[in-house]
Amino acid sequence: MAARKKNTSAKKAPGKRQSGVAAASQRQDGVTLEQIRDAATEVHRRILEKGKPDLSFPVRSLRNVSYAKGRGYFEIGRQRKVRTLTVNTVKSFAQTLRMMGLSKNLIETNDFATKRDAYYQSKNWEEARFEEQTESDTVMDDIEALFSVRGTSREQLRFVPDEHGGAVAGRLVVLDPDRETGAVERIDCTRFGSGAYSIPSTVEHLSFETDAKFILAIETGGVFQRLQSHKFWQTADCILVSMAGVPTRATRRFIRKLSDECKLPVYAFVDCDPYGISNIYRTLKVGSGNAAHLSQFFCVPQARYLGVTPQDIVDYRLPTHPLQDVDIKRAKDALKNDPFFKSQKPWQDAIAQLLKMGVRAEQQALAKWGLNYVIDEYLPRKLEQTARFLP
Amino acid sequence: MAARKKNTSAKKAPGKRQSGVAAASQRQDGVTLEQIRDAATEVHRRILEKGKPDLSFPVRSLRNVSYAKGRGYFEIGRQRKVRTLTVNTVKSFAQTLRMMGLSKNLIETNDFATKRDAYYQSKNWEEARFEEQTESDTVMDDIEALFSVRGTSREQLRFVPDEHGGAVAGRLVVLDPDRETGAVERIDCTRFGSGAYSIPSTVEHLSFETDAKFILAIETGGVFQRLQSHKFWQTADCILVSMAGVPTRATRRFIRKLSDECKLPVYAFVDCDPYGISNIYRTLKVGSGNAAHLSQFFCVPQARYLGVTPQDIVDYRLPTHPLQDVDIKRAKDALKNDPFFKSQKPWQDAIAQLLKMGVRAEQQALAKWGLNYVIDEYLPRKLEQTARFLP
Repeated sequence: MAARKKNTSAKKAPGKRQSGVAAASQRQDGVTLEQIRDAATEVHRRILEKGKPDLSFPVRSLRNVSYAKGRGYFEIGRQRKVRTLTVNTVKSFAQTLRMMGLSKNLIETNDFATKRDAYYQSKNWEEARFEEQTESDTVMDDIEALFSVRGTSREQLRFVPDEHGGAVAGRLVVLDPDRETGAVERIDCTRFGSGAYSIPSTVEHLSFETDAKFILAIETGGVFQRLQSHKFWQTADCILVSMAGVPTRATRRFIRKLSDECKLPVYAFVDCDPYGISNIYRTLKVGSGNAAHLSQFFCVPQARYLGVTPQDIVDYRLPTHPLQDVDIKRAKDALKNDPFFKSQKPWQDAIAQLLKMGVRAEQQALAKWGLNYVIDEYLPRKLEQTARFLP
Repeated sequence: MAARKKNTSAKKAPGKRQSGVAAASQRQDGVTLEQIRDAATEVHRRILEKGKPDLSFPVRSLRNVSYAKGRGYFEIGRQRKVRTLTVNTVKSFAQTLRMMGLSKNLIETNDFATKRDAYYQSKNWEEARFEEQTESDTVMDDIEALFSVRGTSREQLRFVPDEHGGAVAGRLVVLDPDRETGAVERIDCTRFGSGAYSIPSTVEHLSFETDAKFILAIETGGVFQRLQSHKFWQTADCILVSMAGVPTRATRRFIRKLSDECKLPVYAFVDCDPYGISNIYRTLKVGSGNAAHLSQFFCVPQARYLGVTPQDIVDYRLPTHPLQDVDIKRAKDALKNDPFFKSQKPWQDAIAQLLKMGVRAEQQALAKWGLNYVIDEYLPRKLEQTARFLP
């Protein structure tokens, strides 16, 4: 791999870069506001014409999903459900419009709200208030799906997750414009000692400067801490991201955005078991079935699987655990029902190999050969042959 | 509260401060190494005398715990279990000594290992290798308890948790000496934009500079993100820590160390429900029953409860949810069986009030009055009357 320089010209003209960061963020907000206004205007127009207004939402279910190999992620299909304003639907119709109004207000005040925040805000909506958070969550999911077909994500609507993002360390400067002044904070991820940069709930406003060669997405906090404390990013010229299990929305979006904008390959380093492969890696790469309308924003189709592979268990003579029934079921499901694994011959072979061996191995199993074997031997060897990574 | 300046003299003499940071860390390592050598030497001496060597561990159970109101945390009692070297115990005895040897080696190489790392390392210990990770976890817990009575924590033995630490933002500079060069990285927690500083798995080597007035420990990521994005730490002159539910060991230790070394009060801001009160807050403040040997390092006895209080539900007319059976059971348990709540009259009254009202409220319920009501009204009002916080 040849080292590539990216966005480094910005270092010479910080003023220009800063206004660029803020301007891109404002442009996206303008697009989102226009989409909200369009949807609301159409409802208003129908009412003035004495017609029954309606809103049309994509159906969110596995039946309405396809795996587009070209695009590389699960896509939502064309099925729509139409909610027409009637006596029976008046409350949920009103709630949907109020929720869209809240989104508009959040963009205009450069603020954000979690699902819970939105639910509690509705307590002041009088007749349109939600009684249970499950109701407001459903309306928010509908709005997210509605705007997703226009290319706008929930985070762009300013609805942000309650959960934490992952941790980041390495050869990366994150540019983060202040929400009030627009002044850009330069966050240098090489300067956190043994600590790390914690990804915010939403990352749409961030941009990046980096001369790293790749992003390494790591399953466990333990391995991340080892690579960070030993500054693996310095010798390997990379960016480390801790996923801590199945990555959160913010973490997935952060990796995707960073990879897209800086043209960086993404390598996943997870446990060799059906959970690591078909839950963590599959979710990172192609998204999940029941949230396919999100895939266009959140999946990382360019991700590849560094390891631990079933063949690594053999090659590195790793200590293993027997596969449990739940592991076997998960692996068989992946082979039989998962559009991603079904379309990838190398993965069919790898999963079949794992099932045949009947064992699984954790990434920390490499510690058998020494605590820093992973840094000194395993990763360097693997990174010499990136073309051989599983797809 | 008067603003206080702490450690600011260090800013004038960075060189001195840096060597001070590294020296303190080395001094502690010297103490730990001596304790390991003492324990091993005693075993060796007994063998040379042809006696049966033994190791004595504190019993880790609720029966062997007391609540020391003076110290402010659960303390482990004087009960010991003695493991004598016999034909039956030879393997676990050898494993215990090897694990102590691993700890010694980690200190000498300035490295660390997680539970999993230690388990896989043992795969090279031949006859002394562990077959299951539960076995090695138990031995590690025993060693931790053994050294805890000498005032040494698991992290000082260089066994670190696999889990992430929490996120931090605000008026704090973290000083983190590089594990190889000793050069101190200065991490300014006001400079993370909408992101945050992610606490490393172990924090023993860190020190701090701050002129903050208090630490605010927050239950949910959503509220943390709001306070961080709106720079609440700037107006309130404080340090924000996101606990994300029950705080991890690293997060608790970080808060405790920061509070101790900089003489900062700690205020907890959690949901008003039996889980927030008796799990999250109680664990933060006094520790938990089955890990009382850790309390001396991990609990934060100086923590006080800012809210949300049962009385806040009334005063702020907050939206509520009914208490579930599990909530009621947890609250009654706290009143009846928990040495901490039993010793604190204000808490007995507050929990009784909550049970009588039969409802709970989330911290985000304040969003009923506006998304930023928590910043503009609730927290400032509360912080004017810190003396009224629950103990």
